[in-house]
Amino acid sequence: MKSVSLLGATGSIGVQTLDVIASHPEQFKLSSMSVGKNIEAAEKIISKFQPEICAVQNEEDAKILRSKVRTSTRVVSGMEGLIEAAVSTDSTVVVNAVIGSVGLLPTLKAIEAKKTIALANKETLVTAGHLVMEQAKQHNVAILPVDSEHSAIYQCLNGEDPKRVEKLILTASGGSFRDRTREELKNVTVKEALNHPNWSMGAKITIDSATMMNKGLEVIEAHWLFSFDYSKIDVILHKESIIHSMVEFVDTSIIAHLGQPDMRVPIQYALTYPDRLELINGKRLNLWEVGKLHFQEMDYDRFRCLKLAFQAGTAGGLMPTILNAANEKAVELFLNGHISFLEIEELIERAMQKLSNVSKPDLETIQETDNRTRQYVESLLSKGR
Amino acid sequence: MKSVSLLGATGSIGVQTLDVIASHPEQFKLSSMSVGKNIEAAEKIISKFQPEICAVQNEEDAKILRSKVRTSTRVVSGMEGLIEAAVSTDSTVVVNAVIGSVGLLPTLKAIEAKKTIALANKETLVTAGHLVMEQAKQHNVAILPVDSEHSAIYQCLNGEDPKRVEKLILTASGGSFRDRTREELKNVTVKEALNHPNWSMGAKITIDSATMMNKGLEVIEAHWLFSFDYSKIDVILHKESIIHSMVEFVDTSIIAHLGQPDMRVPIQYALTYPDRLELINGKRLNLWEVGKLHFQEMDYDRFRCLKLAFQAGTAGGLMPTILNAANEKAVELFLNGHISFLEIEELIERAMQKLSNVSKPDLETIQETDNRTRQYVESLLSKGR
Repeated sequence: MKSVSLLGATGSIGVQTLDVIASHPEQFKLSSMSVGKNIEAAEKIISKFQPEICAVQNEEDAKILRSKVRTSTRVVSGMEGLIEAAVSTDSTVVVNAVIGSVGLLPTLKAIEAKKTIALANKETLVTAGHLVMEQAKQHNVAILPVDSEHSAIYQCLNGEDPKRVEKLILTASGGSFRDRTREELKNVTVKEALNHPNWSMGAKITIDSATMMNKGLEVIEAHWLFSFDYSKIDVILHKESIIHSMVEFVDTSIIAHLGQPDMRVPIQYALTYPDRLELINGKRLNLWEVGKLHFQEMDYDRFRCLKLAFQAGTAGGLMPTILNAANEKAVELFLNGHISFLEIEELIERAMQKLSNVSKPDLETIQETDNRTRQYVESLLSKGR
Repeated sequence: MKSVSLLGATGSIGVQTLDVIASHPEQFKLSSMSVGKNIEAAEKIISKFQPEICAVQNEEDAKILRSKVRTSTRVVSGMEGLIEAAVSTDSTVVVNAVIGSVGLLPTLKAIEAKKTIALANKETLVTAGHLVMEQAKQHNVAILPVDSEHSAIYQCLNGEDPKRVEKLILTASGGSFRDRTREELKNVTVKEALNHPNWSMGAKITIDSATMMNKGLEVIEAHWLFSFDYSKIDVILHKESIIHSMVEFVDTSIIAHLGQPDMRVPIQYALTYPDRLELINGKRLNLWEVGKLHFQEMDYDRFRCLKLAFQAGTAGGLMPTILNAANEKAVELFLNGHISFLEIEELIERAMQKLSNVSKPDLETIQETDNRTRQYVESLLSKGR
């Protein structure tokens, strides 16, 4: 029986993690969880899974939840509560599925507590990859990725010597606008951008998929997760998203991971690694049903956000934080109708040019830079650019 | 430095094995070798690689070769000599690349001598898989496949628990006639059959590829190599032969091996396993250059030889020997213009129906059945069928 802590239980990854836990009651139990403000959902999860601890964002919500809970679950709140949920039970694995940089500190604490990290939170590695991986190495803790591309690479590397790797090859669907030229991108609407061809996801990540920034952030994550130089990371366009990613070895062999677009696969793999379990109600992939797989060379001029991500990753230090914060702000502005689609990359590039870099920044500097970047991007808008 | 014994040094696999050995002189040396009757080629190989032992088929050829050799290489002959080449040096791996059932006894002896077997000889597993794998298990010796499909599966299984495997999925190009109906197959010529779209190989294996018997023999090999029931082995049509084979796991993940059609990859992998080395002058696979990969469901009525192979494998005992011997004879008759293309499968099926089966046959019974089957197929022809 594996005991699991789940941070971010009501988001898309959280819900699917609960699904995996519930589908193998003989293998998994939920020992602690966190939610943001959705205490109605929290109440239901508590009633079903009876965790020892549930952390919520605000103490006010905690009070309401405490009055409703019929189990022995302890309801805690704030960052202190979130950390408690991450470290204070007998869990051996912490699934970090919170959104945004709030997931960083609990992750570092969980690593200190020698818990395996199943990581679905991009910001943690993008902005503080050096801190997380150093800590993980020091405490000999595995960081298992919970998204289809990095889980694919993790699985392809299994049993192999990293020294024999020639390239990590991430696949990219191309997002909602993969067949449009830059000219045609000028006047795309928010509604068009939100229509992703393969995966059903939140608004932010769907836009990131259309700008290819999502892949850019994944490149930076891959750099940290697998300790490969950016020159050893490639991206290829593959519109079906059936090959989730690949590893090329020095003998020209390529090992690839294929499957249906089902996030429960990487979630469950992170919980069972190095073993696997049956995916309950999983849909098998029959390649003859798919018929054809398509591949295209990545065009870094067409997808400028990806180029910016490679530049930020290679520069290192605070640059990925600047890239990420500027992107979050710019996407927000796009979704709210304040800027056009192509202005997203423009604002990110200007932030990267304007704000200064520092190598090996600490947590505080990262946080500060994150805020400063958002303010800077906002200021560009209010000045009428 | 890994010392290698190479049985069948002048065939296609043999020549490429020598290429791999020569390309990594700091890693490999040739300690012994065998050839059939091509003593001119043997002389050159001896002069270049200076092995301790060279086995040739006949003592007359051995005498000629001895008179020409300028190295300290000992030239031996016959089955005794072949076994000596397999076991009498300090080699840790024996590459079995001989053609036909002559490779079986030396393989069994090499396993007894605790040498890793790199196996390129189909007959060894198809006709005597139970003997070879039992012996390998008893002496705790690894049997590493040297062909692209099984090497692919071996690589995909690396680091994984075989209990978590749902299916082995072998890919089949479909051979020279993949786009023809059975009606259109009735009058195909030998020349048409020899025109394989992806791989350049010998005549026998090219015909086996067109009849799909090649894949059928590979299914039987896969059964023995990986200890999976036939119900867990699938074949899918994939005309580009870029995905060399796949493994599907219980969590619906599929791990695949991709690459160029270069036999040096599986040869070198068998020599370096579990490590890998750079493939000197290897051509990298760029999927965007390939553009598209196609997949089609296997049609077992269209490719009846594959169905027969599954039937023979499932029946077990002598049936795979009967299948293989009948096929060899029938292909010979086709290549010599005595029968039509579709009569190949017809003769095999009749042999399988006529000759009686025995479970767990010994070496002698296998050999005897092999001869009897060939005679029976021949007799069908002389009777005018």
